[in-house]
Amino acid sequence: VTDSRQQANEKAVERLCSARPFLTGVATAIDVVPGMQERMILTSGAPLPWESYTGGQREGIIGAAVYEGLAEDPRDADERLASGDIVVASTHDHNCIGSVAGIYTASMPVLVVENREHGNTAFCNLYEGKSPRRLNYGVYDQEVHDGLKYLEEVVGPVMGRLLERSDGIELKPLMKRAVHMGDELHSRNTAATTLLVKELAPLFVELAAGAGEAGELQEVLTFLAENDYFFLRVGMAAGKATADASRDIDGSSMVSAMTLSCSEFSVRVSGLGDTWFRGPLPEVQAQLFESYTADDIQWMGGESMTMETIGLGGFAQAAAFALQAYQGGSPEAMARTNEDMYAITLAEHPDFAIPFFAYRGTPVGIDVMKVVSTGILPAIDAGLAGVGGGQIGAGILRAPMECFVQAEEAWRERYPTP
Amino acid sequence: VTDSRQQANEKAVERLCSARPFLTGVATAIDVVPGMQERMILTSGAPLPWESYTGGQREGIIGAAVYEGLAEDPRDADERLASGDIVVASTHDHNCIGSVAGIYTASMPVLVVENREHGNTAFCNLYEGKSPRRLNYGVYDQEVHDGLKYLEEVVGPVMGRLLERSDGIELKPLMKRAVHMGDELHSRNTAATTLLVKELAPLFVELAAGAGEAGELQEVLTFLAENDYFFLRVGMAAGKATADASRDIDGSSMVSAMTLSCSEFSVRVSGLGDTWFRGPLPEVQAQLFESYTADDIQWMGGESMTMETIGLGGFAQAAAFALQAYQGGSPEAMARTNEDMYAITLAEHPDFAIPFFAYRGTPVGIDVMKVVSTGILPAIDAGLAGVGGGQIGAGILRAPMECFVQAEEAWRERYPTP
Repeated sequence: VTDSRQQANEKAVERLCSARPFLTGVATAIDVVPGMQERMILTSGAPLPWESYTGGQREGIIGAAVYEGLAEDPRDADERLASGDIVVASTHDHNCIGSVAGIYTASMPVLVVENREHGNTAFCNLYEGKSPRRLNYGVYDQEVHDGLKYLEEVVGPVMGRLLERSDGIELKPLMKRAVHMGDELHSRNTAATTLLVKELAPLFVELAAGAGEAGELQEVLTFLAENDYFFLRVGMAAGKATADASRDIDGSSMVSAMTLSCSEFSVRVSGLGDTWFRGPLPEVQAQLFESYTADDIQWMGGESMTMETIGLGGFAQAAAFALQAYQGGSPEAMARTNEDMYAITLAEHPDFAIPFFAYRGTPVGIDVMKVVSTGILPAIDAGLAGVGGGQIGAGILRAPMECFVQAEEAWRERYPTP
Repeated sequence: VTDSRQQANEKAVERLCSARPFLTGVATAIDVVPGMQERMILTSGAPLPWESYTGGQREGIIGAAVYEGLAEDPRDADERLASGDIVVASTHDHNCIGSVAGIYTASMPVLVVENREHGNTAFCNLYEGKSPRRLNYGVYDQEVHDGLKYLEEVVGPVMGRLLERSDGIELKPLMKRAVHMGDELHSRNTAATTLLVKELAPLFVELAAGAGEAGELQEVLTFLAENDYFFLRVGMAAGKATADASRDIDGSSMVSAMTLSCSEFSVRVSGLGDTWFRGPLPEVQAQLFESYTADDIQWMGGESMTMETIGLGGFAQAAAFALQAYQGGSPEAMARTNEDMYAITLAEHPDFAIPFFAYRGTPVGIDVMKVVSTGILPAIDAGLAGVGGGQIGAGILRAPMECFVQAEEAWRERYPTP
């Protein structure tokens, strides 16, 4: 059994490492997301009944219903969500991946990322911009509405037109470079965004020459260029497309997805199908924006830890010492945290390498068994939301042990020693 | 005297740190470089008589004379250079800065960088592209000729048109960011080049919209985007504009320039005017491209150590661990080399900070006295040229002690203790 688990895990991690995600387009969710419906809202986390969504995640879903015109006002939205007239579903079940509350409606533009090695596709909606007030941070007001409309009417269509002129932008080489340029691709995406702008710039020039006017194009280029976080959504879609390719390897104890809702942290395991192993909210070592305290933190969900699932983020902190300024911790602590992740993973990534570790590959493929046996919990770099909505800081989360213990038990039940 | 030296050095290093270089244009050398003449060729290093230029530096100067149409062929060029019909002068004496042999002719396009804090201007010619065969590496043939013509006829004019539409691109914020993104801005300019492309992209879009065609613009954008080294010349002009502002501070023992010719390494000192203190060629710890050995290294000059003069390059190695792959050395050795530089410098840079050192400012302002008393030699990241021309590798140079010993003696003579 140990041998067959080892073989299964080798296969699972090989798929994780060999995926080749390409950014191929930007399209409207309803047109491309499998199973998406007009009256459906997707949100982060293992699925919960409507009454269990609280705080910012609930506010975000309600805001989305109003934004989409599915309800007249928040009260109406709440009733329709309770009655099932508006359906809430889990992003993961629709090949999507959610940032914080991670909210999708039918009309939102989504990034389309194809894994050309394994033939699967994943989606992520667009970064709303620098304001701490965003729908995915549980806020919906006129400013948020206008920002979402701008994405829907300007940024999405322009990006769609740009990408139509390309054969798709291969993301792994770009991400690999970004890791050599100080990104860990979860809480730091400065280099990746800049590299993406560089890839897109000739397409912008081509479109501008054809159009004979710069206006909207220049505006979108500036939107991209000024938002260092823009790439995160592209990376998350790449992460989802990559991790999905490692699902359903019979016998594997490797984590194939991690997710967070307003009340639970959950993991899926490659050899254990679509079951979510649910645990409590994570512990966090936070660095908050001025004036906030730990009491202000509110969990609203989040699936950007798909980056950690594929060997980045907290698993590549030693590539991104510049993150100190944003999420705290000394360079020594960052290197140590990163180093620890080798003890709970199955391989060293053949493409993503850490210059500070003399180009050692990042630790990749979280093994449930190793987490349980070592007691070392996956480290996750993340933005933090606050009570009342909005981002209030960043920090390092630790996935809760309970998920892994349950997953290990389930694995042993499913694959008993003869 | 010690007090007055300290005060003078504080003033000198303050000027080094407060400079604000802006990239304001690209122009033809003869039109903007002070004292440039039609029949003049500028080259790296403290000035030498024509007969003392040897190897690749001599070949490069001869090639430049032919390129510029000042001579019919290499033999004719050699004779005219010997007779003084064609004049060789030192880049530094014309506000220019040379990469390797560092060769300028009257018709070459130069980057114009203004130091808006102190009112001085510096120039650098353009990067020739990725081929190891370049004029500044001592090679002149049809391929090199065509490359130079392309810079003169396409890249230079396009960049000039772009920059005319801007108020000048402020370089220090960009360089500061690049240091947080893994550049030390001498042997690694990947982030800075990408950031520059990002700055220029909206201008490209504007020009393309106006022109109604993308052709040449897209071509130049791609040239920039594909050459990670492109920024080095911009950085060198910024370095020269910065270091020049620290010259002529009475009583200062701070290095205001370092330079290399085919036969000597030399330094200038802020309180000692324009005298070059000349020493032998530097020691080098090299990592050569496959098939080359140390015997293949040939010194052809170089002034890119203006980056070290202003607190970057070897003085910021711990910001650029990715450099290992290119110039060798372990991350530990890089951090140690960088750390050592604090012992021979006057200050920590207020703008350039090293994430791995918990955002400590880079060591800046090399003090001749400290170099002599500690025996620690300035570490310089550099590209290496080979016998017969072309780049054959990279490595870490050490400036020779002799320059500093002579400079110290000269300082003590000029500023005797009462």
